Amino acid sequence: MMEKENRKLSKSSHLPLYQQVVVYIKNKIISGEWPIGSKLPTQREFAKLFGVNRSTVVTALEELKAEGLIEGKMGASTKVVNNTWTLLANTAPPDWNKFVKTGFYKPNQSIVQEINKAESDLNIIQLGKGELSSELFSVENLHTVMHRCINRIDSLGYEVPKGLLPLRQELSKYLSTIGITCSPDSILIVSGALQALQLISVGLLRQGSTILLEEPSYLYSLHIFQSAGMKFSSLSVDNQGLIPSDIATKKQRNQSIIYTIPSFHNPTGIVMSEKRRKDLLQVCEKENLPIIEDDVYRELWIDTAPPLPLKAKDRHGQVLYIGSFSKTLSPGLRVGWLVGPEPVINRLADIKMQIDYGSSSLSQWAVAEWLSSGLYAQHLRAVRGNLTIRLHTMLEALEKYLQGIATWNIPKGGFFIWVKILPAIPMQKLFETALDEGVLFYPGSIYSSACTQYLRLSYSYASLSDIKQGIYRISQIVKKLM
Amino acid sequence: MMEKENRKLSKSSHLPLYQQVVVYIKNKIISGEWPIGSKLPTQREFAKLFGVNRSTVVTALEELKAEGLIEGKMGASTKVVNNTWTLLANTAPPDWNKFVKTGFYKPNQSIVQEINKAESDLNIIQLGKGELSSELFSVENLHTVMHRCINRIDSLGYEVPKGLLPLRQELSKYLSTIGITCSPDSILIVSGALQALQLISVGLLRQGSTILLEEPSYLYSLHIFQSAGMKFSSLSVDNQGLIPSDIATKKQRNQSIIYTIPSFHNPTGIVMSEKRRKDLLQVCEKENLPIIEDDVYRELWIDTAPPLPLKAKDRHGQVLYIGSFSKTLSPGLRVGWLVGPEPVINRLADIKMQIDYGSSSLSQWAVAEWLSSGLYAQHLRAVRGNLTIRLHTMLEALEKYLQGIATWNIPKGGFFIWVKILPAIPMQKLFETALDEGVLFYPGSIYSSACTQYLRLSYSYASLSDIKQGIYRISQIVKKLM
Ligand SMILES: Cc1ncc(COP(=O)(O)O)c(C=O)c1O
Ligand SMILES: Cc1ncc(COP(=O)(O)O)c(C=O)c1O
Repeated sequence: MMEKENRKLSKSSHLPLYQQVVVYIKNKIISGEWPIGSKLPTQREFAKLFGVNRSTVVTALEELKAEGLIEGKMGASTKVVNNTWTLLANTAPPDWNKFVKTGFYKPNQSIVQEINKAESDLNIIQLGKGELSSELFSVENLHTVMHRCINRIDSLGYEVPKGLLPLRQELSKYLSTIGITCSPDSILIVSGALQALQLISVGLLRQGSTILLEEPSYLYSLHIFQSAGMKFSSLSVDNQGLIPSDIATKKQRNQSIIYTIPSFHNPTGIVMSEKRRKDLLQVCEKENLPIIEDDVYRELWIDTAPPLPLKAKDRHGQVLYIGSFSKTLSPGLRVGWLVGPEPVINRLADIKMQIDYGSSSLSQWAVAEWLSSGLYAQHLRAVRGNLTIRLHTMLEALEKYLQGIATWNIPKGGFFIWVKILPAIPMQKLFETALDEGVLFYPGSIYSSACTQYLRLSYSYASLSDIKQGIYRISQIVKKLM
Repeated sequence: MMEKENRKLSKSSHLPLYQQVVVYIKNKIISGEWPIGSKLPTQREFAKLFGVNRSTVVTALEELKAEGLIEGKMGASTKVVNNTWTLLANTAPPDWNKFVKTGFYKPNQSIVQEINKAESDLNIIQLGKGELSSELFSVENLHTVMHRCINRIDSLGYEVPKGLLPLRQELSKYLSTIGITCSPDSILIVSGALQALQLISVGLLRQGSTILLEEPSYLYSLHIFQSAGMKFSSLSVDNQGLIPSDIATKKQRNQSIIYTIPSFHNPTGIVMSEKRRKDLLQVCEKENLPIIEDDVYRELWIDTAPPLPLKAKDRHGQVLYIGSFSKTLSPGLRVGWLVGPEPVINRLADIKMQIDYGSSSLSQWAVAEWLSSGLYAQHLRAVRGNLTIRLHTMLEALEKYLQGIATWNIPKGGFFIWVKILPAIPMQKLFETALDEGVLFYPGSIYSSACTQYLRLSYSYASLSDIKQGIYRISQIVKKLM
């Protein structure tokens, strides 16, 4: 219920500690921040939050109970039942819980919510995050880029629907280097690749549409398409990528579309071969199936670049191509792009205007400058070198500690190693114990219900020593659970 | 279909002009940017785009027709029917038009799309834009702010779900100055106020819910709630704001919620009186109705600040409070906020993570710095002074040119004057003629089907001379149409 910022109580206050807890909770209730019906944190969470004993918390809760503000068994199910106003006025406030439960969107999987929280905990070794380490972020470059672009900014007004023109022009140039011919008119700037998927789901597909995709896939960890009433249908995959011969049988009578991550697949790391790309396009042309190509990891190769995008060989405007600066530069910029046939881009630009009136101009200017100054290309080279070292460190640690009890692929790029734990141990337990012992990874079950024996380890974020330490700790837990 | 960037042809090329047009269109078709089935721009649009005669365009289109690439009567209905690949391969590409038509979201009203386009035309006098003039944007302040905040940034990673903590802390302080007590935990950073509405529509309300609201209202110009399957029910309004006695009868058996813009209403400019605010809260408490308070214009007062927000008197967590930096600082930052009970904020933060993984960190840092440095407060003072001058200029022009043929309110803040044209002239015609003659305003019909005789004039954006000139031209057209 609350975020994990520490709220330390004052030892020197004239109020005893438990009274400070009472005051804190009362303020939350009186201000309406914790309205009637809301669940209180557990005693354990309170104790951690304030850095006090559980007994102090119990005393505080007893007092609030006596005042008639909260009710319920101590522990998980304590709820706010009154606030000082309702005690006075005897009226009932809106039942927000009912609202919270009825919205159109499903909540994130609870394990994803738990991960979201643990990811901001500095004491945890982060082997989950799909994000570059901050050591790869150059504050100096940010300075240079901002300094240069501010001179081009005369105001930060509402942008044209497709996004900042100088950025789309730079992107059009960049895309030609990977074989994609498109004018700025066919590019839509989005707030990250995720928003591109969101726009496609509400702007192009109807309820009951079918998404054909690799399994496991990043897309299984999201709700975007399911929330919009669509179904998933999995395609077989081998080490060359998805197997196109499967498609004809899987395609549904209703609207269907393919989603694929051909380069450095999340979570498996697989790169779709040149030949497969050709075959896939051919089958889709024949079957009249559009393709969403999610290519956010393309530039993060170790030794050689992956084959050109599907979009580069797309002769009919069959492919919607998605890219992002999140993985290569900084996710906090929230800048990605979508390339497609102009009528499709126009439609999605119109919807983006309805949803958020465009992405941050400041971010768009910054990225445009990063591209035009050449600093982006330079940064990519540094990132590739650094990721190579990280990957090797993780591979060494895996060999040293998990040899014989796990298998894994050797990725040619991207951020992740997809690890299969061989002994049949309870993986939920592994996840929880590791988290308790300060190591966070993503369980494979997020990406496919068939992948419970897998974990996704990221080598992009943690320090080299944390990578080693993290894998060591995981190996110890696995051995204990065997 | 295309954006209005100019593509000048080369007079010195060895290719004749019409051939250059052919090549341009062919490239669009071959690259898949204009897939089969897409509508070509009209001859007139092409001519304008390339700066050539219509006869040149006609010759080019005839050639493409002869090659079998396009078909249809010349003019509006010319379509792409083949591309060089399909001519060769005889396969059919995906029918994107079908996709474009089937998405979940409705397209923007065509008049809104037309306005969106005209707003980036520098030759038009902009009396529509709800946005500060760029003369009020201080590049110097942007420099200062960016310089200071870059020193606090060590990387731009994915943000915590509710948004950058230093920004939420600054907002919590700011909000206390307008009577709202809330901790950073009860604040969600959003990509503009529009996104707050979007999140509420998909995160809290179910299909078939009813939104009670003022009519006319900004909300009528959007599709967010209707796209999510909700209904509108209008409440009566007088010059004190909406009339709460109406609510009990309008409330539906299904889920209902109130949407209101109590301070400097868009488009009417009305400020809800202190007494009305109290009554409204009381009725909503009794009826158990939650309220969305859209307060984006609050700080833009002329002589005196409006009464405290409804949220300031909210004792039960009944009110969701929405604010934004779009109107006061810069819309291109895309930073707004939502304040509400913590469980509601948690739920909406989770959905925001599903939709776009948070707002631009760069923008969030910039705004946090604007607040903490005091530059924001200073900027607001300058803005108020400037808006006062603009308002008076517009009022003078109205008196000079529209006296007797129109009536209007005298706003106490915000950006808009709500003008009623007295003679029964065809307003669509007024809008179109004005646009042809280089003046853009928003027709009242966008905000209510009952307000066809109204126009919304914005004094925030155009220069003082453009304001006078624009109103003069409107008056001339009105007189002609009488
Ligand atoms: C395959 C894939 N697509 C899209 C995204 C979303 O990235 P962005 O930050 O650009 O929204 C991710 C990141 O998690 C990803 O792994
Ligand atoms: C009443 C009202 N609410 C919300 C908005 C959206 O503003 P933002 O740019 O913060 O999304 C506007 C702007 O048009 C508005 O007039």
